[in-house]
Amino acid sequence: MSYNIPKTQVAAVVPGPGKRLEIKQGEHVTQQSELEPGQCLVKLICTGVCHTDLHASRDDWPLKAKTPLIGGHEGVGEIVAIGDHTERSPVKLGQRVGIKWIAYSCLDCEPCRNGLEQNCLEVKLSGFTVPGTFSHYVVSWVHHVTPIPDSLDSNAAASILCAGLTVYRALKYSGSKIGDWVVLPGAGGGLGHLAVQYAAAMGMRVVAVDSGEEKRKLCLELGADKWIDFKETKDLVKDVIDACDGKGAHCAIVTAASPSGYTQAVEYLRRGGTLMAVGLPAEAKLEAPIFWTVIKSIVIKGSYVGNRQDAIEAIDIAATGKVKVRYELKGLSDIQHVYDGLQEGKIAGRVVLDMSK
Amino acid sequence: MSYNIPKTQVAAVVPGPGKRLEIKQGEHVTQQSELEPGQCLVKLICTGVCHTDLHASRDDWPLKAKTPLIGGHEGVGEIVAIGDHTERSPVKLGQRVGIKWIAYSCLDCEPCRNGLEQNCLEVKLSGFTVPGTFSHYVVSWVHHVTPIPDSLDSNAAASILCAGLTVYRALKYSGSKIGDWVVLPGAGGGLGHLAVQYAAAMGMRVVAVDSGEEKRKLCLELGADKWIDFKETKDLVKDVIDACDGKGAHCAIVTAASPSGYTQAVEYLRRGGTLMAVGLPAEAKLEAPIFWTVIKSIVIKGSYVGNRQDAIEAIDIAATGKVKVRYELKGLSDIQHVYDGLQEGKIAGRVVLDMSK
Amino acid sequence: MSYNIPKTQVAAVVPGPGKRLEIKQGEHVTQQSELEPGQCLVKLICTGVCHTDLHASRDDWPLKAKTPLIGGHEGVGEIVAIGDHTERSPVKLGQRVGIKWIAYSCLDCEPCRNGLEQNCLEVKLSGFTVPGTFSHYVVSWVHHVTPIPDSLDSNAAASILCAGLTVYRALKYSGSKIGDWVVLPGAGGGLGHLAVQYAAAMGMRVVAVDSGEEKRKLCLELGADKWIDFKETKDLVKDVIDACDGKGAHCAIVTAASPSGYTQAVEYLRRGGTLMAVGLPAEAKLEAPIFWTVIKSIVIKGSYVGNRQDAIEAIDIAATGKVKVRYELKGLSDIQHVYDGLQEGKIAGRVVLDMSK
Amino acid sequence: MSYNIPKTQVAAVVPGPGKRLEIKQGEHVTQQSELEPGQCLVKLICTGVCHTDLHASRDDWPLKAKTPLIGGHEGVGEIVAIGDHTERSPVKLGQRVGIKWIAYSCLDCEPCRNGLEQNCLEVKLSGFTVPGTFSHYVVSWVHHVTPIPDSLDSNAAASILCAGLTVYRALKYSGSKIGDWVVLPGAGGGLGHLAVQYAAAMGMRVVAVDSGEEKRKLCLELGADKWIDFKETKDLVKDVIDACDGKGAHCAIVTAASPSGYTQAVEYLRRGGTLMAVGLPAEAKLEAPIFWTVIKSIVIKGSYVGNRQDAIEAIDIAATGKVKVRYELKGLSDIQHVYDGLQEGKIAGRVVLDMSK
Repeated sequence: MSYNIPKTQVAAVVPGPGKRLEIKQGEHVTQQSELEPGQCLVKLICTGVCHTDLHASRDDWPLKAKTPLIGGHEGVGEIVAIGDHTERSPVKLGQRVGIKWIAYSCLDCEPCRNGLEQNCLEVKLSGFTVPGTFSHYVVSWVHHVTPIPDSLDSNAAASILCAGLTVYRALKYSGSKIGDWVVLPGAGGGLGHLAVQYAAAMGMRVVAVDSGEEKRKLCLELGADKWIDFKETKDLVKDVIDACDGKGAHCAIVTAASPSGYTQAVEYLRRGGTLMAVGLPAEAKLEAPIFWTVIKSIVIKGSYVGNRQDAIEAIDIAATGKVKVRYELKGLSDIQHVYDGLQEGKIAGRVVLDMSK
Repeated sequence: MSYNIPKTQVAAVVPGPGKRLEIKQGEHVTQQSELEPGQCLVKLICTGVCHTDLHASRDDWPLKAKTPLIGGHEGVGEIVAIGDHTERSPVKLGQRVGIKWIAYSCLDCEPCRNGLEQNCLEVKLSGFTVPGTFSHYVVSWVHHVTPIPDSLDSNAAASILCAGLTVYRALKYSGSKIGDWVVLPGAGGGLGHLAVQYAAAMGMRVVAVDSGEEKRKLCLELGADKWIDFKETKDLVKDVIDACDGKGAHCAIVTAASPSGYTQAVEYLRRGGTLMAVGLPAEAKLEAPIFWTVIKSIVIKGSYVGNRQDAIEAIDIAATGKVKVRYELKGLSDIQHVYDGLQEGKIAGRVVLDMSK
Repeated sequence: MSYNIPKTQVAAVVPGPGKRLEIKQGEHVTQQSELEPGQCLVKLICTGVCHTDLHASRDDWPLKAKTPLIGGHEGVGEIVAIGDHTERSPVKLGQRVGIKWIAYSCLDCEPCRNGLEQNCLEVKLSGFTVPGTFSHYVVSWVHHVTPIPDSLDSNAAASILCAGLTVYRALKYSGSKIGDWVVLPGAGGGLGHLAVQYAAAMGMRVVAVDSGEEKRKLCLELGADKWIDFKETKDLVKDVIDACDGKGAHCAIVTAASPSGYTQAVEYLRRGGTLMAVGLPAEAKLEAPIFWTVIKSIVIKGSYVGNRQDAIEAIDIAATGKVKVRYELKGLSDIQHVYDGLQEGKIAGRVVLDMSK
Repeated sequence: MSYNIPKTQVAAVVPGPGKRLEIKQGEHVTQQSELEPGQCLVKLICTGVCHTDLHASRDDWPLKAKTPLIGGHEGVGEIVAIGDHTERSPVKLGQRVGIKWIAYSCLDCEPCRNGLEQNCLEVKLSGFTVPGTFSHYVVSWVHHVTPIPDSLDSNAAASILCAGLTVYRALKYSGSKIGDWVVLPGAGGGLGHLAVQYAAAMGMRVVAVDSGEEKRKLCLELGADKWIDFKETKDLVKDVIDACDGKGAHCAIVTAASPSGYTQAVEYLRRGGTLMAVGLPAEAKLEAPIFWTVIKSIVIKGSYVGNRQDAIEAIDIAATGKVKVRYELKGLSDIQHVYDGLQEGKIAGRVVLDMSK
């Protein structure tokens, strides 16, 4: 197999902290000879756009991105080179793989040894601390790219790599089981509409919370059992409890950026219920009342993307057809418009950028 | 066996919400013929005094006590009567038993079926919604009194029934194991000094956080590996992390009434660490930053006293001599002084009231 | 509400150990005044017939039934009386409830406190140590009868109470999750066809193992992903491994009466796989090779029916329509024919006896 | 740092399947230039001798060793070289490390991703499929050698690397907790005497089963609560049950080579008890009765050495002084005598070979 790797490429670059994106021609492409052992070069087919990319470009997180920054961490592409002296590679040249938020973990530190690869002490983050997928070529690591099964289309796979993985792991680690009531605030959004499908596929009963007729239809179509429009309800907590046989929910997957989502969840969860915190708002605090958290035996778990095994499972479930991403396909040059749309909250579902456009 | 049950007794009564305690002569003692099926009458030998009793008398919780109220939920006594038609009793006349906070749970509702008896939908609380142990006789329930092994002295058992149980369950459900670093803010206090001993007996390594030379000596004597004086440290978070091999703690058992204890714990816990929330402050909020809770994969669990099995285990461990309560013995008539001392934070260890005094 | 309770009834009785069933007229019906506290009288609508009933009547188990014996432990009926002085009843007169194998557990002993009600030290077994459901009226216990939701037909509920419960709990406690490969030997039988449905509803991928075209069609229709005919395969172990992506199964639910089912499972399970043992053969031994059990990190769990919560969940899942029992409806007088059929292995699915016939 | 690595060394070699050991001079030492990326060269200080080494040399396992074979997998030594192009090494030149049974796992396959490194599809086994520690130098892998803390003596560390790790992991994964009764057949032997100490350090109560006054004294001294001499007891099962408060044990760690150890454990375990199978006998079968395994809700777990994290924990606990190996120190030239002693069952505790002798 031989590949013609160009010297330069087009990439969307954030020039400095908080600066606007620029589409740049002539960005350097790493060549075979420059790859370190364990690295691979991936020619991208497409990439999703995630709300985290917006945080990175806005520079509003306590964690800081390296700039100039090429963002993006939901890429699908083909391996076109592997670094010399790579000890052993679980993927091979020509294989289609996914690039996720966790670009690299050392596999040796205590968190890695315990399966918390996303908490690695040496972690590298795609599109944040190392260049990401808003470009034609990206350098990644053979131990962390995710194989994409033949039965799964590249565009369909992209958003599973972050949005899908995040909600899948949250459900997997929530301890919820068949028949349990799971509340999904933002059920019609990018993460939410995937959570509805994963939860339904696991046999859970879903209370979808969001707003608008379009999202209502989407959620019910994807398998939600109950729908609550947060703009129309007079008492969200009461409505959720009523929806869950009058007993409250077993679990809530909270992606909200504001503290109220957490306070409400502690109220509508039944005794012994679990709140999975997956959102990464810049500044908000949990603000759950300690008294009720203790007296109701509530468990609150921070769930941060997922490890390699979680990613493979999230992708494999999508490959069986049980979970389908609703996305709009655009080109790399549309990326600033997409960011503007995310900022204004105008994007329904996910956006995937086709690199050939 | 036959018992001479008097018609009246002495009891410490809170006459109404927020009112001061009164020691009353001539309070009614329930007679054999008045017991319902499943109830038993216990002649008290001694009782502990808990901070919760102060909350009950001050009426500052979101949960409201019934008044006039006889408080107390750390009682040890002898069963002197069992209600007729009791289906089947796991305890018998003359047996020495403990009265804990959870006086009754139905054993039938969903929380009870799942072992969360403390979250029973029909729960009755000793010294809060039903009369407690600040009296010579108390009515309780055969399925919920805790057998006291012969090898355990009544005075030594009393504080295990709430303070011991609470910290034991928190440690048991924290997922901590031998060698893990557990941080105990308030390690020299009523709950804390028992937590030090339970944790050490499980092989965990304890970072005791409290203040003053007396508490320092106590904690190290009881098995703590490290001591931090929160009044002397310039940076509590840094000192805890340093104490834990520079990597942060695996677990914190937080009994604090103020939000800062929770915010600090999220900071000094290592990635994947667990915060057990056991305190029941009237109004405080968790106030943990969502960003770090998620990105560090922190788990926060509300742990509320414990169920019957937890209580039996906590007592049995104390009976083997591995955990010893440090208490000061007083009489029932001293109770107002004890309350005043608790209010002012002047009580070291626990206070046990001897009913014969 | 008032009920006309007759003095006598018709019942199927095993007169002594190993003796043939007799349909007897004039068997005593317990009257309201004879019920003990905690007991209830249930007028049966229908009852399933289980292989265990055959063991009981054949007297071939290490555990011995009381004779003369009225068998049966999959009954559905209406509560027509509750014992006086019942402390508190979670069910009420006129309610439709199920009678399961575990007729009574004390809710107080160590296994009960830990949720292992089926392992209660004082357990009573329907149709084995206390009279069962092969009669028009049966005495049971208010804390252990299972409420039947309105949306679930009595005949459809009967077999869930033992066959459904048994396989549901085995799946629930197996640690299997969405996407995992679960092997079900005997997938077309009474327990197996329910296991196929529960597993599919939880998102697991099912390898159905059984024999014959009729069972093949049934299993695939109910949601199995793969089918293996054990009479036609040349190498069952290899075929199972191949069916599971060439890697072996995550889990096997083994109901087999012969040791070979266990030996094979240890071979076709992947490393770290779980074997749930649910069958109760009279004499067989596990006979799994220790070497491979250890070196493959295999977990073998004995799973014995289930507790009250498991039963409620199994019934509630059936009530949502996700699991449907395939049964043939007969009358109580047909019971000897049914036993003969079970003995000869000729019964497909389950048999339910309609008490009005 | 610079090392003088000789060209040849002394090693104990098994020339072919089932052949007797030979001490060979002039065996090749791998040089720096021959190391592959990820490999390291360790100069051995000492090594333990394990029963598994005897299996390897006798060729009586279903799994086959490569011959000619240098056995040994409990080595402690110093890293004297690391392969060029090693991606990143968690250990450094001059560091003291341990060589355990699992010499290498890929860290990429499904078992590795799930933390079951010992079940890696590409696993390499020290002294079995790759040369082991019965030599002066050994090639190992940087990701799998175990750092030895300064506070732990090399001779004291050696046997922790297999015997200690094996029993520590078995206890860790058994779900046992403080106060639980754990039965240790062979408590006075190589694995057993370490299990007594780990179990006691976790707060469990230990029933030591073995024979002879010397072992009795050793076990009680190391923390066992009860002692049963299997040669003197008339009814081992009854005696174990009596020792465990008359209720049976919560857990048994069975290293036995004969099926009877497993059958007995199923009998003396209490309901819901756990049997950890850790022995690797060549041919024996579990032979546990299915009926009682199911009806008592027994869990049987195959536990195979441990992963990197387990090894680090086992070593770290020993470094705190809570677990001490009882060993006899010999020289490499004594190894055939040691094998003979193991074969005849004459070795008490462990044997460690000092490489300088």
